Amino acid sequence: MPYMPVTESMFLLAETREQPMHVGGLQLFVPRAGQSGTELAEEIFETFQGCTDVRRLFRKRPASPASLFGYAAWSHDDEIDFDYHVRRAVLPRPGRIRELLRYVSLNHSALLDRTRPMWELHIVDGLEDGRVAIYTKIHHSLVDGVSALRLLENSLSTDPDDRNGTAWWDPRLVRRSRKPSSSGSRIPTLSAVTGLVGQAVGVAGQILGATPAAARVAWTAVTDDDFASPFVPAPRTMLDVSIGSARRFAAQQWPMERLRAIATTLDITLNDVIVAMCGGALRSYLIDRDDLPDTPLVAAIPVSMHTDDASEGNLVTAILANLATDQPDPERRLATVVASTRKAKQVIRGLSPLQALMFGAAAFAPLALAPVPGFVRYTPPQFNLIISNVPGPSEQLYWNGARLDGAYPVSIAMEGLALNITITTTADQVNFGLIGARKELPSLQRLLTHLDTALEELEKVAGIVG
Amino acid sequence: MPYMPVTESMFLLAETREQPMHVGGLQLFVPRAGQSGTELAEEIFETFQGCTDVRRLFRKRPASPASLFGYAAWSHDDEIDFDYHVRRAVLPRPGRIRELLRYVSLNHSALLDRTRPMWELHIVDGLEDGRVAIYTKIHHSLVDGVSALRLLENSLSTDPDDRNGTAWWDPRLVRRSRKPSSSGSRIPTLSAVTGLVGQAVGVAGQILGATPAAARVAWTAVTDDDFASPFVPAPRTMLDVSIGSARRFAAQQWPMERLRAIATTLDITLNDVIVAMCGGALRSYLIDRDDLPDTPLVAAIPVSMHTDDASEGNLVTAILANLATDQPDPERRLATVVASTRKAKQVIRGLSPLQALMFGAAAFAPLALAPVPGFVRYTPPQFNLIISNVPGPSEQLYWNGARLDGAYPVSIAMEGLALNITITTTADQVNFGLIGARKELPSLQRLLTHLDTALEELEKVAGIVG
Repeated sequence: MPYMPVTESMFLLAETREQPMHVGGLQLFVPRAGQSGTELAEEIFETFQGCTDVRRLFRKRPASPASLFGYAAWSHDDEIDFDYHVRRAVLPRPGRIRELLRYVSLNHSALLDRTRPMWELHIVDGLEDGRVAIYTKIHHSLVDGVSALRLLENSLSTDPDDRNGTAWWDPRLVRRSRKPSSSGSRIPTLSAVTGLVGQAVGVAGQILGATPAAARVAWTAVTDDDFASPFVPAPRTMLDVSIGSARRFAAQQWPMERLRAIATTLDITLNDVIVAMCGGALRSYLIDRDDLPDTPLVAAIPVSMHTDDASEGNLVTAILANLATDQPDPERRLATVVASTRKAKQVIRGLSPLQALMFGAAAFAPLALAPVPGFVRYTPPQFNLIISNVPGPSEQLYWNGARLDGAYPVSIAMEGLALNITITTTADQVNFGLIGARKELPSLQRLLTHLDTALEELEKVAGIVG
Repeated sequence: MPYMPVTESMFLLAETREQPMHVGGLQLFVPRAGQSGTELAEEIFETFQGCTDVRRLFRKRPASPASLFGYAAWSHDDEIDFDYHVRRAVLPRPGRIRELLRYVSLNHSALLDRTRPMWELHIVDGLEDGRVAIYTKIHHSLVDGVSALRLLENSLSTDPDDRNGTAWWDPRLVRRSRKPSSSGSRIPTLSAVTGLVGQAVGVAGQILGATPAAARVAWTAVTDDDFASPFVPAPRTMLDVSIGSARRFAAQQWPMERLRAIATTLDITLNDVIVAMCGGALRSYLIDRDDLPDTPLVAAIPVSMHTDDASEGNLVTAILANLATDQPDPERRLATVVASTRKAKQVIRGLSPLQALMFGAAAFAPLALAPVPGFVRYTPPQFNLIISNVPGPSEQLYWNGARLDGAYPVSIAMEGLALNITITTTADQVNFGLIGARKELPSLQRLLTHLDTALEELEKVAGIVG
């Protein structure tokens, strides 16, 4: 049986009923001309159910029995119970996006079965606009967000006339895997943070063909105070609480060109724009809830350490960013965010890959302890939430001619980390997926409005007329 | 905060991700004339969501934080998140019963959220025959099966023209509660076991108006060997294994008159017929799977100790019955079952109510220990499965004119008890609900065919031409 590294088993060990450790994705497809949503849903369902040759990743499950010290090995099932893993659902009338998000909210709360490969795929029709959704759940011990998106990318085609659409687990996909976005001009989606860390550890050329952004800071000064080290506690807020198992999912997309225009004008990275949007939105949300702390929120931003596009599994570290939520002025807030992420990059720059991974592990260590009762209550948080930017496909993709119209990440809320914001970029859109503890974060969907307002504020800072 | 008795907290303590401790029900309704399934589903949904006055039982949740010794008290929420608790679902085409059972199978695997009142209600349309299903989940710490059925009964009307249909949690239902089936002739559904035990503990007149069945054994002799005491281990079979969290649900109904005719002809109880059907079916299933043991399976049969129709919560003990699965002859199998349940009744007869409850608790004690890793593997089982017969409404019932057409129980599979068979009677039907561990019990739905065959065999024993 293959040995299970601690970077994988920690996601099994840290899992409780209040803290499921699966990541998800919500993809929307537009049926090809002349095809109804139900027809497309049935075509996907039948194709996927019929793909009984399953690559190894999708047959992997924790070996049983688990030892008293946790899971130490993987085993692989020969047979997959497709009736269990591949599901069909129809939304009730009126079939708005609201009903779809509700479906995801309710299903994302449920734990995966550990006695079988830990993934599910739900094919959903009934949207009034005729689109079809695929909602996937896969355990974080199997893949991280970057790997999950690569699986999606590999199963789709850039050719709208391609009719070789198959299931994500088709072993032939590994062989036909396209080189993802290797030209520098076609990767507007890649976080510059990822690029810089990649360069630092000597793998920049391999990370999705990353081209580091220019490093000039033209419009603000950087001070040491702006750097949030892992040893300075973040303030305590309503985000840093014990949570129940119920979730709420909210999602929205914004045109890439709007965020890109701000980044270009101010000579900052797309990632800076995204993090600043989150900071502005969280400030407004916490003011709404009368819970804005005097000191700024700190976000942990995972940085992928994948070294080539064929790798699977988890390889992630993190930097900490100052969200400047104490700052009412959008320009000063942005300046603080930019300075903070640059400093954090510098800290990671000098480390070996192993050291960088350990740095991330040190920052994440409280997560593994959080399920101990009372732990969250008595330990100051190192950060208030995780904001993750996962670069997605940069080209328009299709499945049997059905156009991919959005790909929203559905991540993990944790004990002491009631909110997670994950961003995925697809072709010309920036897709935000917010997952939160349902009871602990009321009116979570208001964050979408606040994100929109924060984007408009940043456009004003950049002198772009909306 | 109200104190939580151990008979309730044990269901919280014994719960793991592989062993959810909620019970469920699946009710089918025929829309009234001129109404579509979707219209009925929406009518129920809107009525239920609009019923914001919620009786105490449906606002009850474990007080938090739990102590290291478990849950010691209940608390009550003032506000209910109806968007979470009350759900709408539509079945995909072709909308057969198979798709409905699949929906229940998949949803019954998911744990309830402990930070809110532990119940869910799913209103499902999309059945090709136009019927509408209500699938409910409620934690066993809140109610047992008898109480759950009473809640259903109370929310329905015997009058097809009654348009005062409301949600199950409407506090007015407690006041308008009808006297359930108080005339002896209208209780064909009550298990005679319940009646006899009730008589023994001096509450027969209060248990749903029970009339004990005649006690004559006309056609077979009773030997001591037929009595399965709690201290004689049951054989080890594929039913007595560690289980995963995934479930499969199978359900079917048979006309009451067929079972009743056998009972009347042979002068045995309806419960004897039901238990004998299960014994015959399990024998065939285990032969199919090449796992039939040399010694007979033992079933635990919970016996309700409810003393009046207003009581809520849990009050259950159990007897053990010899299923005679080693016996190829249907007549001899039935004789052994009858002798075994009569003996068990005699044992319980001499006990005080508290002693009888303790007797049940002793038999169930291994359940609380089962989640300890390895426990199931090294301890011989005291019984192989639980067969539960829960008397339901004896009259035809309606909700706003929609006729109740079936009410299937969805019970609990456990560590070491991979299968549970629960039977509910409604008007003229006997409804079997089988819940099993999905991976450990392949082809569970074959048990339905075997139950049908076993019923035909019993008709032959009774000399009834099919």
